[in-house]
Amino acid sequence: MSPQYYLGALLLMCGALAYLQEGPSSLSVYALRLGPGEEIVTSLFKFVEEKKLKAPFVITCVGSVTKATLRLANSDALNTNEIIYLNERLEVVSLVGTLNEHAHLHISLADKDGKTIGGHALGDLEVFTTAEIVIGEASTLQFTREMDNHTGFPELVIRPRSEDAIST
Amino acid sequence: MSPQYYLGALLLMCGALAYLQEGPSSLSVYALRLGPGEEIVTSLFKFVEEKKLKAPFVITCVGSVTKATLRLANSDALNTNEIIYLNERLEVVSLVGTLNEHAHLHISLADKDGKTIGGHALGDLEVFTTAEIVIGEASTLQFTREMDNHTGFPELVIRPRSEDAIST
Amino acid sequence: MSPQYYLGALLLMCGALAYLQEGPSSLSVYALRLGPGEEIVTSLFKFVEEKKLKAPFVITCVGSVTKATLRLANSDALNTNEIIYLNERLEVVSLVGTLNEHAHLHISLADKDGKTIGGHALGDLEVFTTAEIVIGEASTLQFTREMDNHTGFPELVIRPRSEDAIST
Repeated sequence: MSPQYYLGALLLMCGALAYLQEGPSSLSVYALRLGPGEEIVTSLFKFVEEKKLKAPFVITCVGSVTKATLRLANSDALNTNEIIYLNERLEVVSLVGTLNEHAHLHISLADKDGKTIGGHALGDLEVFTTAEIVIGEASTLQFTREMDNHTGFPELVIRPRSEDAIST
Repeated sequence: MSPQYYLGALLLMCGALAYLQEGPSSLSVYALRLGPGEEIVTSLFKFVEEKKLKAPFVITCVGSVTKATLRLANSDALNTNEIIYLNERLEVVSLVGTLNEHAHLHISLADKDGKTIGGHALGDLEVFTTAEIVIGEASTLQFTREMDNHTGFPELVIRPRSEDAIST
Repeated sequence: MSPQYYLGALLLMCGALAYLQEGPSSLSVYALRLGPGEEIVTSLFKFVEEKKLKAPFVITCVGSVTKATLRLANSDALNTNEIIYLNERLEVVSLVGTLNEHAHLHISLADKDGKTIGGHALGDLEVFTTAEIVIGEASTLQFTREMDNHTGFPELVIRPRSEDAIST
């Protein structure tokens, strides 16, 4: 094959890699507190939408909930029914993930005996007393989701913001 | 009721919301390492006080402890006795929360079998070998705690710093 | 002993403390997504090396793995065999730590029942569908590891970057 072919393939690979990692970016942070009865996942979606965040992620979250719906580890694109519905007081001991459209959040929760349970946060995370959350926004990046045929899920794509996007 | 009444109520609500979320803020970070025998919660309090941090929170913490006192999920303002005292080597696998006065920290710890236990970090987190901690400080925010009659606890209040506060 | 002795000892102690905490520093962030089959620890090492990061740490990580090798809480410098090999689908519900040479990462993973297991991430963290990771880099700090005779491990040392180091 011609040198042009290899050069083309190389450029294509570099382009693909560019979607998978980006930086450095400066960072802005937002802090919010949710009160009794508010739902964490919905509230975060709403917050991100209102503030028009383009590359948001969770830095820390401390709080307590009275309910939670988690998708468990054996789920995949063809088996989405591995779900647990919790209905008890739980302490949020970790919340990790990215917050753009189709946010991807995992959580671990500790129960009345300190036992922890974790998985993909689907919703129903109703606050018991409080949820204190700090969100980071990578100022020069743009997160989107695009279907990945290898996984069957829309997966995170990371790009630098266009000049126009940064100025807005 | 008069239009003035509704306008007043609306402004009051907007004011209340402003206490619950703030940003964007720029961020400074601090890194510290605690050694054998140091206590994590006390050390973080002392650090925040010494550096006069006004909106501090945990970004990451990795380390090990020989003890821990945790308040469990069924505790509330009227039932503060749900506490567990651990006395064994444990790996810190998450530490989340805010660090201003009456800091609010949740932790999860893994034991010799990898089993994790979590809750509200009350103290006694004596370092076994090390604790490496990165703290974020939202440069233009001010965290305080004010009694929330709905929960019976002093809860996080988030405000922009006054110009004076920023310049100090 | 002479006043000079005490002054010398005091300066030595201050010098030692300076290695244990540093800041404030500004922060840059990097975002990356790993795909099916990639290994998280190795990929993070490689990323840090390629980008020549000097004070890197994990801000958040959400994802799933099919394997994991963890060192458990009873390990120490003389007993390094307390290791568990997991071979199942697991959700990453926390990843904490620093990423310079001899990175120090702890992880908690949730299994098909939501049960979580945690410890020191040694490796083999093969991605199932995705791992979305945000890394922070303290712009004016330098992380190294130096042998600590108290623990028998090379432990984190935090220093301000020299002017030369910052300009590179």
